[in-house]
Amino acid sequence: GFPFKQKETAASSRIYGGVRCDRGGYRKRAVLSKHLVTRKLFEIMESKQTNLCLSADVVSSADLLDLADTLGPLVCAVKTHIDILDDFSPKVVDQLVEIANKHNFLIFEDRKFADIGNTVKSQYAGGAYKISDWSDITNAHSLPGSGIIEGLKAASGGRKDRACLLIAEMSTKNNLANDVYKEATVKMAEEHGDFVIGFICTSKVSKNPQHVHFTPGVKLKPGKDAMGQQYLTPDEVIKNRGCDVIIVGRGITDSANRLQEATAFRNAGWAAYVQRVSS
Amino acid sequence: GFPFKQKETAASSRIYGGVRCDRGGYRKRAVLSKHLVTRKLFEIMESKQTNLCLSADVVSSADLLDLADTLGPLVCAVKTHIDILDDFSPKVVDQLVEIANKHNFLIFEDRKFADIGNTVKSQYAGGAYKISDWSDITNAHSLPGSGIIEGLKAASGGRKDRACLLIAEMSTKNNLANDVYKEATVKMAEEHGDFVIGFICTSKVSKNPQHVHFTPGVKLKPGKDAMGQQYLTPDEVIKNRGCDVIIVGRGITDSANRLQEATAFRNAGWAAYVQRVSS
Repeated sequence: GFPFKQKETAASSRIYGGVRCDRGGYRKRAVLSKHLVTRKLFEIMESKQTNLCLSADVVSSADLLDLADTLGPLVCAVKTHIDILDDFSPKVVDQLVEIANKHNFLIFEDRKFADIGNTVKSQYAGGAYKISDWSDITNAHSLPGSGIIEGLKAASGGRKDRACLLIAEMSTKNNLANDVYKEATVKMAEEHGDFVIGFICTSKVSKNPQHVHFTPGVKLKPGKDAMGQQYLTPDEVIKNRGCDVIIVGRGITDSANRLQEATAFRNAGWAAYVQRVSS
Repeated sequence: GFPFKQKETAASSRIYGGVRCDRGGYRKRAVLSKHLVTRKLFEIMESKQTNLCLSADVVSSADLLDLADTLGPLVCAVKTHIDILDDFSPKVVDQLVEIANKHNFLIFEDRKFADIGNTVKSQYAGGAYKISDWSDITNAHSLPGSGIIEGLKAASGGRKDRACLLIAEMSTKNNLANDVYKEATVKMAEEHGDFVIGFICTSKVSKNPQHVHFTPGVKLKPGKDAMGQQYLTPDEVIKNRGCDVIIVGRGITDSANRLQEATAFRNAGWAAYVQRVSS
């Protein structure tokens, strides 16, 4: 089972590495964090009072930019799948970066790198998408071993404003990321704190307050899709499972009123956070 | 340990599912196989006497097409990372398909899909690359569970000339694909024989003669790179570990005489196969 699935007690959550800290408090963790991207993310979350990351899974560039501009004020990050855009051009990412600056959110390309170091190096910096040029955060599977982190780091060319999340757990039915896998992933993150800032997970997996926990598969009601995706609520993810950021895609993008839905998710996520840190 | 790491005895290798077959013989397995892509691949291998798959990891389209055209006669498949091409255009894949037809090899886009079903569906058929339009074979991690296969299958729109390999093992140092992971992957393949035709692996993982085993990380001498890749020889892979196809990248592409090196790999891989099936 997951050791952190139940809400932590105040006492257990405030000591890490001998340091007393409110691990649930985004602002205190911003101060604690060594990585520029972690600090920036936590500061955005506190100043905008949001732990919502929009998963902008749309296939048209105009739709992507419109979503980012309309919902930008409500989110701490916009997650992209740049490789599903039917009409990609380098101009799209330039415009997305402008919108991100305007509304103060981070861009997270959900590439799920999953190859050997030498290959991901080219995939991250090169090709048509040049992800490392415009994406503050990307993510990678720990499956290939730490060479994948070395490859991505090499491609980022030492930029301090680029960071990576490791996928420690998946939200899909019958996925193969078990406890052993998760623990090896957390260890890998600890060993690469200059580039890995946290996790994609369904529950808090690390006690290190510098680690950010992003959780996908979030809807206002629990459920599943036809291809194995399983949904949790903002309250469950933030309050009970101790994660930091809720990633919401179809719960918002499939809605007739995206602004209203995004507001509902933002409010639910933030309320759950406030309850967690006040308890 | 791996049950098939040692060379199999003739007796053990010739019975599968009650059917007597020479499991090492590509031609017999072509006849046995239900999937069109498997049959086509085994037939190409026998008729061209090659179990070499070129990993064309180059960043220029001209270089990719030149490699495919020059080495095409020597290989059963060309493996691409279409997303590392700095000058990709849809014309490149059209030309690659023409060259594949001319020299009778399959195209294998090494995308390593690794997301939930709903996402890989868009990644496989859509975006800038439209992989399902031109790639006979692609591959996926089993990590997200069988939803990933459902997503890819849905994107292929029921085409019989599209197939997928699951990554059962990786060639990198300290990778997290252990025996439990491998066994779950093989089970997933068995359950999706209409789309999954085999594995990326470092040793034979399935006794099903319809399953094709592709092994990356092959050089003429054992060794490693600076980012965790570990190399095996063609002889070790084909003769001792019972795999079917050797995937060779830098061993050929980094050579001053690519044609000569590719010929050496082709001859070594084929000699190992002939020895295996004659013993």
